[in-house]
Amino acid sequence: MDVRTALLEAAMTAFAEAGTRGATTRRIAEAAGVNEVTLFRHFRTKHELIRAALERFVERLERQPLPDRPADPRAELLQWARAHYRMLHRHRALIRKVMSEREEYPAHCAVGLRASTAIAADLTAYLARLRRDGLAAPDGWDERAAASMLLGALFSDAMGRDTMPERYSYSQREAVERYVDLLVRAIAARPRARRRERGSTPS
Amino acid sequence: MDVRTALLEAAMTAFAEAGTRGATTRRIAEAAGVNEVTLFRHFRTKHELIRAALERFVERLERQPLPDRPADPRAELLQWARAHYRMLHRHRALIRKVMSEREEYPAHCAVGLRASTAIAADLTAYLARLRRDGLAAPDGWDERAAASMLLGALFSDAMGRDTMPERYSYSQREAVERYVDLLVRAIAARPRARRRERGSTPS
Repeated sequence: MDVRTALLEAAMTAFAEAGTRGATTRRIAEAAGVNEVTLFRHFRTKHELIRAALERFVERLERQPLPDRPADPRAELLQWARAHYRMLHRHRALIRKVMSEREEYPAHCAVGLRASTAIAADLTAYLARLRRDGLAAPDGWDERAAASMLLGALFSDAMGRDTMPERYSYSQREAVERYVDLLVRAIAARPRARRRERGSTPS
Repeated sequence: MDVRTALLEAAMTAFAEAGTRGATTRRIAEAAGVNEVTLFRHFRTKHELIRAALERFVERLERQPLPDRPADPRAELLQWARAHYRMLHRHRALIRKVMSEREEYPAHCAVGLRASTAIAADLTAYLARLRRDGLAAPDGWDERAAASMLLGALFSDAMGRDTMPERYSYSQREAVERYVDLLVRAIAARPRARRRERGSTPS
């Protein structure tokens, strides 16, 4: 790992533990195994370093795809939600810090939350495709609100489970399935009718 | 306002802006209009002060009641959700800080989130009453997960709306109604059948 990458990774670790305020250049340099002079040769300020580290973090996040042509909404949503939940839970400390930077370091907050906005757009578009393809109720619900509902449940669970264990008596695995099932019921999502096999008799 | 109260309120304001790390005793004392010596006469350490301020904050939060005998789930949930959303939104900076303290100041995090646990328990118990009274689907859903779903949507919206405006194209007022409607659909909640008026003919 080159020095720049080591600094970026050390910055993200320190940020996840202590936010921008607590992620001192001394702490970051030590964790990266370099001295502060070296750090300042690569990044002019701590803020520049943290910002670059957040940009890199967001760019490298893998986004789980959702099918262009939905076939089995419950299964597709469940697979997607499991991957999204894993990502949220893995990075929960970092995400909590990003959120809390809104007042003091809005630029850091904005970079970090770019990923969240893109993920919400993916899910919203998929839910709109379910409606378009007749795989969900034609009206009475809004795809943005429905996406926010599932994302909100996954997010709160992933962020809150370690801080409020009393609230979560079911496992993470059960949780994701229950949230997806509630959404499936709320929008009356159903699988695509299978096309008739060639040679089968029309019923 | 006595000095102690002034210090507790100044501590919450500083904490909401800058977290435990940024809420220095100097900043708190200045905001309360006293000097640091006076602050330390009331509280031995900054942590003791912030902890006491969080305890006071949580104790003073008003919890919106939910009816013991539900009659109109949608209306009751909507009224409750509006009040809960207002509270979350008003205190969003403070709540974001509470969440982000998990790694460095778990005791502060735990105090702050006690309110959240109590609120989730209220909503969970209400949803269980809907089921008990036949005002929601008898099975296929879990009241804790359903409560988490609505709470998660309200929470994420209230916390994220100012940091990710692109995600929220609908107003806060519309948002709460849409989340409640999605939950109502998910659990098939319906109003209690009206009792026959005295003197009416049985149908």
